Amino acid sequence: MLEDPVSNVSSMIRTLVLALDLGGTFVFALCGALVAVKRRFDFFGIMVLALAAGNAGGITRDLLIGAVPPAAITDWRYLLTSLVAGGITFFWHRALDRLQRPILIFDAAGLALFAVSGSQKTLEYGLNPITAVLLGVITGIGGGVVRDVFTGEVPIVLRAEIYAVAALAGAAVVVIGGELGLPSAIAMSGGAILCFGLRLLAVHRGWDLPKASTSHGTDGTR
Amino acid sequence: MLEDPVSNVSSMIRTLVLALDLGGTFVFALCGALVAVKRRFDFFGIMVLALAAGNAGGITRDLLIGAVPPAAITDWRYLLTSLVAGGITFFWHRALDRLQRPILIFDAAGLALFAVSGSQKTLEYGLNPITAVLLGVITGIGGGVVRDVFTGEVPIVLRAEIYAVAALAGAAVVVIGGELGLPSAIAMSGGAILCFGLRLLAVHRGWDLPKASTSHGTDGTR
Amino acid sequence: MLEDPVSNVSSMIRTLVLALDLGGTFVFALCGALVAVKRRFDFFGIMVLALAAGNAGGITRDLLIGAVPPAAITDWRYLLTSLVAGGITFFWHRALDRLQRPILIFDAAGLALFAVSGSQKTLEYGLNPITAVLLGVITGIGGGVVRDVFTGEVPIVLRAEIYAVAALAGAAVVVIGGELGLPSAIAMSGGAILCFGLRLLAVHRGWDLPKASTSHGTDGTR
Repeated sequence: MLEDPVSNVSSMIRTLVLALDLGGTFVFALCGALVAVKRRFDFFGIMVLALAAGNAGGITRDLLIGAVPPAAITDWRYLLTSLVAGGITFFWHRALDRLQRPILIFDAAGLALFAVSGSQKTLEYGLNPITAVLLGVITGIGGGVVRDVFTGEVPIVLRAEIYAVAALAGAAVVVIGGELGLPSAIAMSGGAILCFGLRLLAVHRGWDLPKASTSHGTDGTR
Repeated sequence: MLEDPVSNVSSMIRTLVLALDLGGTFVFALCGALVAVKRRFDFFGIMVLALAAGNAGGITRDLLIGAVPPAAITDWRYLLTSLVAGGITFFWHRALDRLQRPILIFDAAGLALFAVSGSQKTLEYGLNPITAVLLGVITGIGGGVVRDVFTGEVPIVLRAEIYAVAALAGAAVVVIGGELGLPSAIAMSGGAILCFGLRLLAVHRGWDLPKASTSHGTDGTR
Repeated sequence: MLEDPVSNVSSMIRTLVLALDLGGTFVFALCGALVAVKRRFDFFGIMVLALAAGNAGGITRDLLIGAVPPAAITDWRYLLTSLVAGGITFFWHRALDRLQRPILIFDAAGLALFAVSGSQKTLEYGLNPITAVLLGVITGIGGGVVRDVFTGEVPIVLRAEIYAVAALAGAAVVVIGGELGLPSAIAMSGGAILCFGLRLLAVHRGWDLPKASTSHGTDGTR
């Protein structure tokens, strides 16, 4: 029996989205776990922050596009991936620390992988291109937002030069590639590389975007 | 061909809810962006906080009533409104600062507009009156909660005199008006004015609600 | 007319889940309100934190399993339960303070009740056992996470010895009991007692889980 080529393509894309999702989960979980180690949380605190950071972006995306229950909740591979990342960090965080700025690198990788999987999955759900870009950004930044809010930090997306905009660039490549009829695998690879590269460059060079000229001490908040 | 009057009414209400939503998005985005300027976030940090503060309430409401994907994600007008508000703040925040306590005023306006649109949209979805009031409050406070949690503040809804209760009053006017058969436009205008007025009065007068008499140093938390 | 015994059982389980949910809502609301009193929030701040802490876990669970709109939003009993708990705390918090570490005890009770109702309701929705355990944990920890994030604390689930793991144990008892065909009431009681007991023991003994050996000052974050 001949297979339907269209459904083959779409099944390949689903596999690719799953792979990117699991990759993003792994690196954001590593990153959450490293923050937890630094904060001297105990073993379970590390595991919980690995789970939360690794899965927040994907769960948010799935809730927003109506893919309920979210894959991260029903598919044990997400759970296992997060726990493995947490365990690796628990036992070998000294080795990870030998990397230059490991948290920022893993965070950049998670941003790139989720930005791309987020926009692609949104397109698969038939939503419009602008929504797909927006959801790419939300999926990408979700892990870092939850990690930072849980540990009492201002989310990195608000304080880092070129963060949301790197996710935006990566998601836009996926969506524009889709509009142009490029193979998804190519658009997604290109988007992920662009996002990761932009973010790492920003980290490396300490790029700063213009700030609003801040003012005098008047303050409307209590 | 004659139009169906019932669907005309309901389409007018949908337009009104959209207008209130966009108005609320605009003022909460202004407010989030002003906080971001004060915190010296860069251009994209300002835009991200404008987007988050402007859309958190509406997205939460839509998730809770099952209006998925949320309007703020699929309708580019929400995106544009937030970005325009962020841009205005970036370039002209000094002018905004000339207002007395601009953040509190925009925040009060967002509270009022979203409290009213939240309860009305919930009624449209056929949910019960108490749920509609509750969702009015949740929609109203959502933008401020996200803005404050992202910037490490205790949410204004917890620390301000007459905040949730102003949203409650505004939402209740919409729901009671609906029960009494008042035209929605009138009930919604009345509710928004009541909420905004109550909140501004509270800001102006520094009204305080009774506090529980606090006690000795015993503390059950770690 | 004879009643259908199967639907009787399932209606009994629904009643049990409701009772556990309301119990969890009550104790988490007490707990949130006590934190609000300690922070000297005003009357409405106390009520809002009682509502948020009491209902966050259940609302999150319902969103994740697709039970939309969430019960806590549509069923006035959740609202009433939270407000009663907030009112009791407002007027009689001194009496509650006479308990040893009241916040930790109510928090442990909420954790246990929601872990069990969360996993049971997920099973009812036909999701797989691992998802049910995971959702038991998420439902259990949700109230504490929201209470702590709102008040600027690191969530207790990250810093406490034996917290998520107590919820995990309770949820696992429910799920394994279900697999073994035990009556739900027994599995749920057993799970709740195990979770509550484990958590209280951990509080009492100050049990600590192993921490990752922390390192030198290298830090990848900005």
